[in-house]
Amino acid sequence: MNKFSIGVDLGCTNLRIAAVDGHGTLIEKVTLATRLSRGRDHVIAEMCDAIQSMSDKFKSSAPLQGIGIGVPGIIDVETGLVRDPNLPDWVDYPVHATIEKRLNTVVIFENDANVAALGEKWLGAAKDFADMAMLTLGTGVGGGLVLQGALWRGANGMAGEFGHVTVEPEGELCTCGNRGCLELYASATGIVRQAREAIASNAASALARSAESDSEFNAKSIFDLAMQGDGDACRIFRFVGRRLGIELAGLVNSFNLPIYVIGGGVASAWDAFAPSMFEELRQRSMVYSATVPHTGIAMAGQPSSVNVQSRTGRQTIIARTLLGGDAGLYGAARLPMLNSQ
Amino acid sequence: MNKFSIGVDLGCTNLRIAAVDGHGTLIEKVTLATRLSRGRDHVIAEMCDAIQSMSDKFKSSAPLQGIGIGVPGIIDVETGLVRDPNLPDWVDYPVHATIEKRLNTVVIFENDANVAALGEKWLGAAKDFADMAMLTLGTGVGGGLVLQGALWRGANGMAGEFGHVTVEPEGELCTCGNRGCLELYASATGIVRQAREAIASNAASALARSAESDSEFNAKSIFDLAMQGDGDACRIFRFVGRRLGIELAGLVNSFNLPIYVIGGGVASAWDAFAPSMFEELRQRSMVYSATVPHTGIAMAGQPSSVNVQSRTGRQTIIARTLLGGDAGLYGAARLPMLNSQ
Repeated sequence: MNKFSIGVDLGCTNLRIAAVDGHGTLIEKVTLATRLSRGRDHVIAEMCDAIQSMSDKFKSSAPLQGIGIGVPGIIDVETGLVRDPNLPDWVDYPVHATIEKRLNTVVIFENDANVAALGEKWLGAAKDFADMAMLTLGTGVGGGLVLQGALWRGANGMAGEFGHVTVEPEGELCTCGNRGCLELYASATGIVRQAREAIASNAASALARSAESDSEFNAKSIFDLAMQGDGDACRIFRFVGRRLGIELAGLVNSFNLPIYVIGGGVASAWDAFAPSMFEELRQRSMVYSATVPHTGIAMAGQPSSVNVQSRTGRQTIIARTLLGGDAGLYGAARLPMLNSQ
Repeated sequence: MNKFSIGVDLGCTNLRIAAVDGHGTLIEKVTLATRLSRGRDHVIAEMCDAIQSMSDKFKSSAPLQGIGIGVPGIIDVETGLVRDPNLPDWVDYPVHATIEKRLNTVVIFENDANVAALGEKWLGAAKDFADMAMLTLGTGVGGGLVLQGALWRGANGMAGEFGHVTVEPEGELCTCGNRGCLELYASATGIVRQAREAIASNAASALARSAESDSEFNAKSIFDLAMQGDGDACRIFRFVGRRLGIELAGLVNSFNLPIYVIGGGVASAWDAFAPSMFEELRQRSMVYSATVPHTGIAMAGQPSSVNVQSRTGRQTIIARTLLGGDAGLYGAARLPMLNSQ
């Protein structure tokens, strides 16, 4: 085994840790529950223990290159502090220094959508491209940009906030202060909110029955209904697709990147939102229309079509994540490798 | 005199040619009318004659580094063809090869908004920054991106099409096929259209009187009325500012660049549209709000404020062009200098 590194995906539900070698081969993966309710110190202690035991297990057979951790929220590049209140008691706490001291090795923190972008760039849908953007449709909507092979963090480490771009100028109020952000429509939270609105106007619908009978009524339940042909559920995902299309059209016209990858849990509902997303994108982006032949090949988002298009080097590809939920884990493991290059 | 280059700004109305040295000092500038009606061959012949005579005049005292030409439309990087039908009979004509052969020297073509961005980056509002975006509000709305000191052309040379980003999803139809593009509101053409709409609903207004008495009724006439306090004219520019604010908020949240420069003829109406633009931007972009103190300094867009902010290196600046109508001319002259670096 050549050098390996440890990637950590610290989500609000799960804490996942993986040892990955320089070729991207997964050596071991463990998943723990993130017990945020027990407080920051408990989460950090559990995480450090798990990292330490994985490191101990393999470091006799190969050198450990470092540890990369993807966290929700914005990382202050200068101070290493987590600035976003997704993890309330982590704000202004010297988490980076604490963990480095405890593990006695180099630890690199990065925003979770940025590491997902790095993962897809390294081993996923964008692996043949130097430039790519990633949208992660999860509880919220995040984004990451890789330009000329490196993460584009922007002047303040805040680039890629694609979830908070306006797609409906007079839309709902967002927690960020804006109205009509993409996150309000294309996140799992936004999809459930739209379903609840539909239920409020038609209490006899299949959506209403599902919400009543299913204690875990979520974006997946609504997707299942859409796949069964339920009109209300289909309408919600068509709307999601259209809002995604508006945003993608703006990104394509602004950046003209070769590939945009859509990941996060909601990407599983690709079949329900992709048709209206592509329709909107085609209508709204002259750059997309000029760079995609009307054959439908670029619409599939399948590995085969990615390979076909990468050879021409001129087409705009909108691809579904290849790594799925592991994009962030691989991307986090990649961080120490990039750092030592 | 050290080496010099010749920059050409080929607009649909004027053809401007300047000799500029490596320090950005203007040596000579000439302006001719672009007589498009006489056809492509005539325009090219006049342009080549003027370039040749300027080159002859100075090349005995300093070496000519090359010729840069900014043209409306999209340049195909591979073929050197102009792909946009702003110059109808130039499409698919080997303009690049023709001019190089005629002048017997290296000629570099670039999109007009891209050269304006290069000009502002070299000598203007963005000269202290490696990364910047430029929006040119002229007859249409163009854009250019400079990342890490170099033009960001994108995968197909089509990056920076900021004029065709959606700011009103259900808005007017644009020639590009989209609805509600920024260009429909923030271009000179868009401003006049909005004034004509206002006149149609109130034929007794000051706008209507101005349109009737002024045979050249244009965006400048409407700006003059706004500066005199006319309610209809002020409303139009407030709307322009709000649409600009929506787009800038999206760009700031996506790119997190240190500076965005607004140029083109409509930038002269800064005082009429800037207040609502900044208000919208502040409400809609958490990245902007997080990076700009609420002192109003960053709102001035004046040279002094640019200098103040560049020292901190962390603030988001929205600046008005410093080079005005000459941004594209200096940027075009810069092209051969960058090429030989």
